[in-house]
Amino acid sequence: MPSEKGQRKSFKQRLVLKSNLVKETLSEFLGTFIMIVLGCGSVAQAILSRGHFGGIVTVNVGFAMAVVMAIYVTGGVSGGHINPAVSFAMCLFGRMKWYKLPFYMGAQFLGAFVGAATLFGIYYDGLMSFADGKLLIVGENATAHIFATYPAPYLSLANAFADQVMATTFLLMIVFAIFDSRNLGVPKGLEPIVIGLLIIVISSSLGLNSGCAMNPARDLSPRLFTALAGWGSDVFTAGNNFWWIPVVGPMVGAVIGGLIYVLIIEIHHPDPDAGFQTESSEDKPEKYELSVIM
Amino acid sequence: MPSEKGQRKSFKQRLVLKSNLVKETLSEFLGTFIMIVLGCGSVAQAILSRGHFGGIVTVNVGFAMAVVMAIYVTGGVSGGHINPAVSFAMCLFGRMKWYKLPFYMGAQFLGAFVGAATLFGIYYDGLMSFADGKLLIVGENATAHIFATYPAPYLSLANAFADQVMATTFLLMIVFAIFDSRNLGVPKGLEPIVIGLLIIVISSSLGLNSGCAMNPARDLSPRLFTALAGWGSDVFTAGNNFWWIPVVGPMVGAVIGGLIYVLIIEIHHPDPDAGFQTESSEDKPEKYELSVIM
Amino acid sequence: MPSEKGQRKSFKQRLVLKSNLVKETLSEFLGTFIMIVLGCGSVAQAILSRGHFGGIVTVNVGFAMAVVMAIYVTGGVSGGHINPAVSFAMCLFGRMKWYKLPFYMGAQFLGAFVGAATLFGIYYDGLMSFADGKLLIVGENATAHIFATYPAPYLSLANAFADQVMATTFLLMIVFAIFDSRNLGVPKGLEPIVIGLLIIVISSSLGLNSGCAMNPARDLSPRLFTALAGWGSDVFTAGNNFWWIPVVGPMVGAVIGGLIYVLIIEIHHPDPDAGFQTESSEDKPEKYELSVIM
Amino acid sequence: MPSEKGQRKSFKQRLVLKSNLVKETLSEFLGTFIMIVLGCGSVAQAILSRGHFGGIVTVNVGFAMAVVMAIYVTGGVSGGHINPAVSFAMCLFGRMKWYKLPFYMGAQFLGAFVGAATLFGIYYDGLMSFADGKLLIVGENATAHIFATYPAPYLSLANAFADQVMATTFLLMIVFAIFDSRNLGVPKGLEPIVIGLLIIVISSSLGLNSGCAMNPARDLSPRLFTALAGWGSDVFTAGNNFWWIPVVGPMVGAVIGGLIYVLIIEIHHPDPDAGFQTESSEDKPEKYELSVIM
Repeated sequence: MPSEKGQRKSFKQRLVLKSNLVKETLSEFLGTFIMIVLGCGSVAQAILSRGHFGGIVTVNVGFAMAVVMAIYVTGGVSGGHINPAVSFAMCLFGRMKWYKLPFYMGAQFLGAFVGAATLFGIYYDGLMSFADGKLLIVGENATAHIFATYPAPYLSLANAFADQVMATTFLLMIVFAIFDSRNLGVPKGLEPIVIGLLIIVISSSLGLNSGCAMNPARDLSPRLFTALAGWGSDVFTAGNNFWWIPVVGPMVGAVIGGLIYVLIIEIHHPDPDAGFQTESSEDKPEKYELSVIM
Repeated sequence: MPSEKGQRKSFKQRLVLKSNLVKETLSEFLGTFIMIVLGCGSVAQAILSRGHFGGIVTVNVGFAMAVVMAIYVTGGVSGGHINPAVSFAMCLFGRMKWYKLPFYMGAQFLGAFVGAATLFGIYYDGLMSFADGKLLIVGENATAHIFATYPAPYLSLANAFADQVMATTFLLMIVFAIFDSRNLGVPKGLEPIVIGLLIIVISSSLGLNSGCAMNPARDLSPRLFTALAGWGSDVFTAGNNFWWIPVVGPMVGAVIGGLIYVLIIEIHHPDPDAGFQTESSEDKPEKYELSVIM
Repeated sequence: MPSEKGQRKSFKQRLVLKSNLVKETLSEFLGTFIMIVLGCGSVAQAILSRGHFGGIVTVNVGFAMAVVMAIYVTGGVSGGHINPAVSFAMCLFGRMKWYKLPFYMGAQFLGAFVGAATLFGIYYDGLMSFADGKLLIVGENATAHIFATYPAPYLSLANAFADQVMATTFLLMIVFAIFDSRNLGVPKGLEPIVIGLLIIVISSSLGLNSGCAMNPARDLSPRLFTALAGWGSDVFTAGNNFWWIPVVGPMVGAVIGGLIYVLIIEIHHPDPDAGFQTESSEDKPEKYELSVIM
Repeated sequence: MPSEKGQRKSFKQRLVLKSNLVKETLSEFLGTFIMIVLGCGSVAQAILSRGHFGGIVTVNVGFAMAVVMAIYVTGGVSGGHINPAVSFAMCLFGRMKWYKLPFYMGAQFLGAFVGAATLFGIYYDGLMSFADGKLLIVGENATAHIFATYPAPYLSLANAFADQVMATTFLLMIVFAIFDSRNLGVPKGLEPIVIGLLIIVISSSLGLNSGCAMNPARDLSPRLFTALAGWGSDVFTAGNNFWWIPVVGPMVGAVIGGLIYVLIIEIHHPDPDAGFQTESSEDKPEKYELSVIM
């Protein structure tokens, strides 16, 4: 009696999504949410304990492993971008179709916002007791940098922009290598771990200038949340209107990083499948096409 | 002469357990025991040395690697739950039969109790010399938090409960992803390592409120041991009777975490083996059945 | 002309060892040498810099990774024991033939001695300038604990012995699990890494009492070296003649640890190859025989 | 119409390098560049934040992971040497042809120089504000050791030379083991991670004397850059003209390290393919030939 069986299962079946795009959008939402709660949570624990239960090691390792876990949760469904700059680069280099980009980016910004709100809830008592209930942006009792990044006092806007461009350049250049099976090759299923190690080294080396956001969603959505939740609109004006740097810089850096890897390493691989010497390449329009920029 | 040989080997053979349930119960006992000795031991080393030979990094990494080792010892026999909340979620989501649950949970609570007693023995001289032989629960000479978790001074019971629910939600949600072979997939045999990294990030990000027990056996059994071993019954009343939070909270969080992963990621996988579209599913009653809650 | 070719290569060929036992002995010598230089070197860097360029994290990770590297260098040749307690347990549980034991142990003790001497040479200027050229065993300028372990002031001999027994029990119990392919299973080639993580957690949790030697060669040979090199014979009398504890304790603990794993986990595996139910077992006399103790 | 297609793709095709040597040279340039920016960047973050956002753990892990990432980017193309001492040893032990050596070394020195310049740019504002714009080599406001290594005050030249020889001996000896598939064997694609762990332990144990450069390009090129960029020629005279030690020492140590591994472990492997017993060995002139030194 297939029909009866079908009926019994129908509630479950109704929950199953048919559309890949909806699945992928949900997945990116969940992944970015996880990254923000656990990643910004690592910052929160260090700041709210005034360094007693966290510091540069737990913050760098914590944020990196938050990314690792987000990729394990979402990688098989949506690729685990959890970063608009990554999604943008994937489209630009022909690894994702452009029509998906607004869905991915929307999910990432929304997931980061909900993640910031959730973290605010988890540490509500802690935040309320930290500075007598005041939610501050500067000074030794500041807590705004739990959620978004702020520049070091010495940093000019020009250097800040170069910093975010360069950091994301390294991020994408090496992410491209990690997923390039014609290079040394990371064993399948361990790519997230190597990306985590990559984030550890970048945040240990290029994190001093401005906290190394490298991700518009990771920075802008939590900043917007803090503006609404009580820190006020100064989160946008602080640091000479720094807020746009971790939004625009990573988009530029992602393109440069991908470009460097492709031009110096990838296109030179001896590979019959690379697809720009024989006609059979037309069967694989999505790979190594560089359709826009080359 | 098979019979003679059988006789010569009979002592060894008599030791071999025929019942899977007994094997699994022993295994969970041993695994939880290992986790407590090495995990709470990492806390002990940091506290008894007043931070000179341990701190947040060694505690977080130590406890996480204690879990990793416990899973390597027990994973192939009993699945390496070492946590009643995990066993409960496994039953609820059709990954373990319900009749095993009391055996698993009993072994876990007992293993944690024996582990706490063993650790007390290993550090007996250290505990006796730390505060002139006094076993204290609060103050700078407190040692009770070597064994069980206690809330931060600022924490309300409501926030404490939410904290334990949320932390365990993240734990189970990501554990489900780690073992979901239709997602990105952790290479076989490395799942314990990734779970260890997961525990590092959760305890680095959500550990400030109340130490991030996420496990009723890990918290209640050592607490009971301290009550009996000299710290007194205040270990239960401390923190506004906090003791039940790390017992009930993780059970709730485990269900929510599993549910989020199943609903947002798992049931949408395109998989002919998933089993709720064809009749052949009746051959696999234990997988992806969600028999209770859906 | 095969003969001519053979002649041209003859110098190289003469160097090639025919005897497995000689190869294995050389391998254990080299492995223990590496472990001491890099492992005790991590302690040296922390002590000689008075904590500025090393601390509990670099010491625990450094010593663990020294073991990892020693195993990668020697594992394929001699099994990478680099520890007399491990070799003893391997013989006792039928995983190595008894006649090899004195060769393995001799190589380990000798390798550790040469390693200590080499480290002394590398840090000669540092040691000479640290305490105005005085080589001290106690006090804030002590350097003897770079090479061997010493007990904490609070520790009784009984607790010290229990400590070394217990630590090595956990070491061997979990090492047996790591190499038990019928359990969860560490991927081939990654066992050294997991052993490294194991050493990190044991030294983070059970290292406070007496530094967690768990290895007679690692402790006795460097101690002997310091006695000869200028620290004097007090290195043996210090801590109420503590020196024999990390020699005897690990031997006892290794047996207990192996026994616990075999009795609680290993012998219960359902395995047609286990060899104590059919006559065919006589073909594999070296595996799972427990020939001495059972 | 193949010709038309060829025309449309011609720009991309023109970028594709035909020569392996050019590819490899580019690859080594890029790899060394990455290592310096992220590796020396980890030192920069620790020094410019005066220890608040970096210390021995982030520096050692950061530099090690910088090497890991550089190898993932270049390993499949040029072998990921990123170190003239490694390339020299590879030639000496018959693993690379001699004619490539000057190209590899040139690329490594150039990549390190450009990397130092890039890092200078990223942290320009930070360097300018650190010591009121003064670029100093000694004292608490020194910044020259961000780029190159300098000896500890207590270190004699003889000990300094022995230190660099020994450190590189351990580096190469263990790197040879990591890539020796007839030994325990690191799983394919994970060699860079194990090399990273190796660098962590060496810099945690043998890093105190002089910072453990172990790489002529990593040290000399950034030192030259600092001489030109404002620190002045004293970067060469400092430490009793220390500059040549991390240039010559690693070359000597690399040879010794390779030699120890080959003589004690590698040539004794039972291997029909090893090639010095039968005539067929003449087909593989590049492997295990030890053509120069044996």
